Amino acid sequence: MKDVIRVGILGLGVVGSGAVRTLQENGEAIARKIGAPIVIKRIAVRNLVAKRAVEVPAGVLTNVASDVIDDPEIDVVCELIGGVEPAHSYLMRALDNGKSVVTANKEMMAKAGHDLLLKAHEAHRDFLFEGSVGGGIPIIQPLKQALAGNRVREIMGIVNGTTNYILTKMATEGADFGDVLKEAQAHGYAESDPTADIEGYDAQYKTSILASIAFNSQIDPADIPVEGITKITRKDMGMADLLGYTIKLLGIGQADDAGLRVRVHPALLPKRHPLASVNDVYNAIYVRAEPVGDVMFYGRGAGSGPTGSAVVGDIIEIGRNILAGGTGRLGCTCFDSRSLLPMSSLVTKYYVRLRTHDRPKVLASVANVFGDFDVSLESVEQRPQSDDSVDIVLLTHRTIEQNMMSALDVLGRLPTVIAVEGWIRVEK
Amino acid sequence: MKDVIRVGILGLGVVGSGAVRTLQENGEAIARKIGAPIVIKRIAVRNLVAKRAVEVPAGVLTNVASDVIDDPEIDVVCELIGGVEPAHSYLMRALDNGKSVVTANKEMMAKAGHDLLLKAHEAHRDFLFEGSVGGGIPIIQPLKQALAGNRVREIMGIVNGTTNYILTKMATEGADFGDVLKEAQAHGYAESDPTADIEGYDAQYKTSILASIAFNSQIDPADIPVEGITKITRKDMGMADLLGYTIKLLGIGQADDAGLRVRVHPALLPKRHPLASVNDVYNAIYVRAEPVGDVMFYGRGAGSGPTGSAVVGDIIEIGRNILAGGTGRLGCTCFDSRSLLPMSSLVTKYYVRLRTHDRPKVLASVANVFGDFDVSLESVEQRPQSDDSVDIVLLTHRTIEQNMMSALDVLGRLPTVIAVEGWIRVEK
Repeated sequence: MKDVIRVGILGLGVVGSGAVRTLQENGEAIARKIGAPIVIKRIAVRNLVAKRAVEVPAGVLTNVASDVIDDPEIDVVCELIGGVEPAHSYLMRALDNGKSVVTANKEMMAKAGHDLLLKAHEAHRDFLFEGSVGGGIPIIQPLKQALAGNRVREIMGIVNGTTNYILTKMATEGADFGDVLKEAQAHGYAESDPTADIEGYDAQYKTSILASIAFNSQIDPADIPVEGITKITRKDMGMADLLGYTIKLLGIGQADDAGLRVRVHPALLPKRHPLASVNDVYNAIYVRAEPVGDVMFYGRGAGSGPTGSAVVGDIIEIGRNILAGGTGRLGCTCFDSRSLLPMSSLVTKYYVRLRTHDRPKVLASVANVFGDFDVSLESVEQRPQSDDSVDIVLLTHRTIEQNMMSALDVLGRLPTVIAVEGWIRVEK
Repeated sequence: MKDVIRVGILGLGVVGSGAVRTLQENGEAIARKIGAPIVIKRIAVRNLVAKRAVEVPAGVLTNVASDVIDDPEIDVVCELIGGVEPAHSYLMRALDNGKSVVTANKEMMAKAGHDLLLKAHEAHRDFLFEGSVGGGIPIIQPLKQALAGNRVREIMGIVNGTTNYILTKMATEGADFGDVLKEAQAHGYAESDPTADIEGYDAQYKTSILASIAFNSQIDPADIPVEGITKITRKDMGMADLLGYTIKLLGIGQADDAGLRVRVHPALLPKRHPLASVNDVYNAIYVRAEPVGDVMFYGRGAGSGPTGSAVVGDIIEIGRNILAGGTGRLGCTCFDSRSLLPMSSLVTKYYVRLRTHDRPKVLASVANVFGDFDVSLESVEQRPQSDDSVDIVLLTHRTIEQNMMSALDVLGRLPTVIAVEGWIRVEK
C-alpha cells in the first residue's frame, strides 16, 4: 500500500497558488483524513523567476511540462494553466502515463473534455474537474454522486461572477451598465477585455459542463444559444424591480420528453426564487430533479481560495481512491445522446419595453399585434416620458418564442412605435 | 468482477418507500451510470400485509431482519427503521457479515454512530449516512469530500423543517406560535407529539452529526446546549422584522483556537444572510471555511422523495466502490478530540424585550443595569402599550453570555420592570 500521494501541478497562477497554499496550510489535517500525506513533487511554470504568491521548496519548480507529466513517481497531475492547448495534450499524455488527473479548465472541459474522460475511464484512472464550474461550490461531485439517483428536470445557474456583480450593482444602485463595468474593471472583478464574461461565453462553457452531467448527454458549447448582458439597461432593472423581479444572467438546461433545451441569457426571475437573492460575485446552481425536488448550491464562483479548495478536494478524492485501490470509480456519465431543441420552439414568458408616440389607440395597436401572433398579455404598464413619448412595459403569458419574435418584428415597424427598446425572457 | 449490486433494506416506511421507488423508476439510468444494475433482494418489514406506497415483487418482503442482514448475497444493507435499537445492532451485524451500510437514522448516528464507523473502516467497508441530515440536500458527502481540503470555521444550519415552517408562518402571517403549530399538525408538517421538533432535539442530533464531520471531532448530542422555539412570540417576530432581522432555529458549530462552540437555539439573523430567506419546510446548511469562503446547501430537508434520493445516492456510491474494488475509501474522520466551550463564555449580540411601568427614569434604570455588567447597547426602542406599561426592545453589542444572563437576572428584579418578556441571541 502506498504511503504518500505525489502530486504534480501545471501552472502556478491564481488557482495554482490557491491549491498549493491549501495543501501547505491544511496538509496535516488532510493527511489524517485520507491516511497518507499529499506531497507536491513538481510544479511546471512558464517563468522560473517570476514572483509567486506562495513559497515553494527549491527543486519543485520547473519550466518543462514533461518534468510533471512524465515523472513516474507522480500519481496525480493537476492542470491549472487554462485554454484548450497545450492543456489537452498534456492531460492526454498524463493519462497515457497512468496518472489520475485534476483540472479546473472550463474551456478545455467544455470543448474537448469528453475524450479525456473516456480515456481515463478505460485506464481506470480518475479524471475530476470540480473547479471548472462554480469555483469552490461543490456541484459536479454532488450531481455525479449524491444526486445520481435522480432524473434532472432543470438546472439553472448563476455561473459567472463578473456579470452577477455588474447586475447586482445596477439593481441596487440604479447605475448604468457601462459605468458599473468600468468600476468592476477598476476593482479587478472584470478583465480589461471583458468580452468572455459580459457576452456570456464563460457561462456557455460552464453551462455545457453542467448540462452534460445533468442530462448524461454530451453537449457541445457551440450548440448552446448565448446572449450576454450588454443589452440590459438601468430602466429595465427598475421596471423589473417594480414588477417583483430581478434580472440575472442564467445558464439553463431543461429536459422534457421532446428533448433538451440548453441556453444562456439574461432573464427576469421572481424575487422569491432562491437564485434571485444570489448577489455580487457569488454563484449558485439550482437543480430541480426527481425525487429530490429542488436543491441549490451557493458560494464564491471564482478566485484563488475557492477554486483552490475545489482542486484540493479533487486531489483528496483521488488520494483516497488510490489508497483504497479503486481509481476510475467515477467515469464519464454521458451515455445518452439527447437532441437539443431550437430556441424558436421555447415556451416562456417575456418582458417587453416599447417606446411609442403619445397618441390615441397606440396601446390598442400594440395589443392587436400581440394578439395576431397568439401572444396574450399578463400585465401592461404605460409611462408617459418627458419628451412626449410613452414607455409601454408588458409582461406576456407563456408563449412560443417564434411567435414572440415575429410579433416584436411587426411591432418594430408600426408607425406608432418609436422602438422596441428591450425584451427579456422571464423564468420561474 | 461483480455484475450486479444486491441491496437489502430494513424498513419500508416513508424513506424506505422513497428509496425503493427511486431505484424502480430510475433504475435503468442508474445502472448505466455505475456499470451494473442495483437489485433490491430483500426488504424486512414489521407487518407483511400492511398497505405499501410502492409495489414490491413477491418474495422480496420478509418480517425477519436476519433475512436481510445475514443473506450472503446481499452487498449493501440500508437501515431505514429509525431509533437507536435494534437499528444499531442490526448494522453492527451487517458489518460483521462484510456488508457495506447505508442509514438515514439521525438519532442512531448522533448517539451511537461512532463505533459503527470505526468498525466499517477496519473492515474496509463503506458506511454512508447522507440522508441523516438535510433530507435530500447533499451535505455530508460535500463536507467529507469536495470541501475536505478546508479548515471549517463555522457551520450553521436550518436543519428542522417543522420549526422552519412554523417560524416562516409566524413571520409572514403575524400568527401566534400555538395557532401555527396546530395548523402544521393539521397539514402533517408537525407530529401529533411535536416535542422533538419544537424543543430542538431533532436539530440537536443533526447538529452533532454536522459538527462532528466539520470539526473532525466526535461530538455527543447530549453535550450540545439546546433551546426550542416555544418561547418565540408574534411580538418578537414583528420587532425582529422592524429591526431588519428574521428569526430562525439554528444549529451552530464554531471553531476557534480555544475550542468548539456547538449549540442549537433560535436566533435573529440579518435579512441579507443567505439563511434568512430559507423558508417553509426547506432546510439549508451554511459553511464558512478556509480557503473556500462561504458556501450554502439548500433543499427539502425531509420526506419520501428527498431522503430517498440521499439513500439511493449512498447506494450508488457504494455500488461504484464495489465495482472499482475500493470500498472503505471514506472512513471516520473524527481524528481530533476538541473540547466544547460552555455557553456562559459565548460572545454574541442579544435581542431583549422588557415590559416596564410607564414612569420617569425607567429607561435609565434599565440602561444602568446593562452598564453594570459591561453590556453596551446598540439600539433601544420604547413602545407605550395600551395598559400604561411600556415595551422596551434592545439590541446589545457583542457581550459575554454570562454577563448578559446576570444583567437579565437583575433586570427581572427591578421594581420598575414588570417582566423580561423575551431574549434571543443575534447571529450574523
